[in-house]
Amino acid sequence: MTFTPRTPRVVAARRLQRRRDRDQSGRFLAEGPQAVRSALAAGVVLELFGTEAALTRHADLASQAPVVSPVTDDGLAALAETVQPQGLVAVCEQLDVPLAEALAKAPRLVAVAVEIRDPGNAGTILRTADAAGAGAVIFAGDAVDPYNGKCVRASAGSLFHVDVVRAPLPVVDELRDYGLQVLATTGHGDAGLDELDDDGSLARPTAWLFGSEAHGLPEDLLEAADKRVRIPIYGGAESLNLAAAAAVCLYASARALR
Amino acid sequence: MTFTPRTPRVVAARRLQRRRDRDQSGRFLAEGPQAVRSALAAGVVLELFGTEAALTRHADLASQAPVVSPVTDDGLAALAETVQPQGLVAVCEQLDVPLAEALAKAPRLVAVAVEIRDPGNAGTILRTADAAGAGAVIFAGDAVDPYNGKCVRASAGSLFHVDVVRAPLPVVDELRDYGLQVLATTGHGDAGLDELDDDGSLARPTAWLFGSEAHGLPEDLLEAADKRVRIPIYGGAESLNLAAAAAVCLYASARALR
Repeated sequence: MTFTPRTPRVVAARRLQRRRDRDQSGRFLAEGPQAVRSALAAGVVLELFGTEAALTRHADLASQAPVVSPVTDDGLAALAETVQPQGLVAVCEQLDVPLAEALAKAPRLVAVAVEIRDPGNAGTILRTADAAGAGAVIFAGDAVDPYNGKCVRASAGSLFHVDVVRAPLPVVDELRDYGLQVLATTGHGDAGLDELDDDGSLARPTAWLFGSEAHGLPEDLLEAADKRVRIPIYGGAESLNLAAAAAVCLYASARALR
Repeated sequence: MTFTPRTPRVVAARRLQRRRDRDQSGRFLAEGPQAVRSALAAGVVLELFGTEAALTRHADLASQAPVVSPVTDDGLAALAETVQPQGLVAVCEQLDVPLAEALAKAPRLVAVAVEIRDPGNAGTILRTADAAGAGAVIFAGDAVDPYNGKCVRASAGSLFHVDVVRAPLPVVDELRDYGLQVLATTGHGDAGLDELDDDGSLARPTAWLFGSEAHGLPEDLLEAADKRVRIPIYGGAESLNLAAAAAVCLYASARALR
């Protein structure tokens, strides 16, 4: 039987587009073959919805899902949030872990997204942190839901590769307790990124704090950090955008930690 | 007199939200105090529209504009493309220069956005290239209009700081003629970014080629480049997004060129 937008299972899954329903159920949606493949590898797929064409095209993915539910094109469109959903949407279990559990694995590189509200930025930080070899990405304070569809898509699978943590705002002491130096990014930092690179500081296990583009980092986190770091600006720009700043800092660490 | 959405000058300026009218007139719109300040500094503002409140708040900007036109809130809303336009919209002259003119200044760092269609990505590359000290940003081939409103906003003023060039696709020979090594970014590059950094290659004047996220660089540009460069991926991600990749490459060059 092929499900339609009115089939109760499809109606129930579609509710996961809303944060309230994600929070209550502990589930979320991942769409497209790339995200579904990563979700299957992480072992968090509960049910895979797909059009007949997509399930045939991606038979390798369908064979790994615990439950496969064929849907009509309309049914798929109801579940998907993109215009070209590529035929697959998986219902997944949320997979974030407590801060202590992530830090107990002794990651050498950690990204902390502080009060970041934009889901596209949050997803990009997940993707960039994963690429740079970070073991954990922490969403601190009143941040966007990491399971927001736009965040999941922008992460391009990385949500399933790193340890995702949701934590209250004061995280610095705990990061330091686990042996990480805490570097806060700010346009008014007293330490230049290149100087930290030159003097070997970046070769130590590091947690980077990134604030929102609109507000930056809260004052108490800036003060609690070990260093306030300024990315050098060589031209006329006032600053970098969040995704670019995170890429520059995380890759400077990745290179030093090789 | 305060202009309304139906005042002919406002109606004419509003047409610049469309590419055809921008191309025909050689003009475009810049909105918000940050962009207006940079546009004034670049000497390209023809007329500054503002609400009474904004013109009072930004009297320093209004005093520099050749023509100041007060508009009603509705008039401003008609000109602006954002929900919170901050009260100012300037009509500007397009300021791109021919490739030879930009290269004759002997920039040591150049970013080439190849067939990039997304205006947000294009604007972010402008901003990141400016921050990294690039002298020119080249839009090559069938790329987005750099004067698209979303690109102007994403550039955060950098459109006015660097030499912007619109050029046909085959740019590699001319870049090389002006003494720039041409590095093409690709996930399948034979040269690793860190190795180029370690062996001193990045300390030479460099033009970086960036392709679109969907299609990457065209095969003939990859072949024409001096090197095909791979950004190292330390984790599970398949790749970086365009803004992050550009930031990593341009800042690796900036650091080496210090």
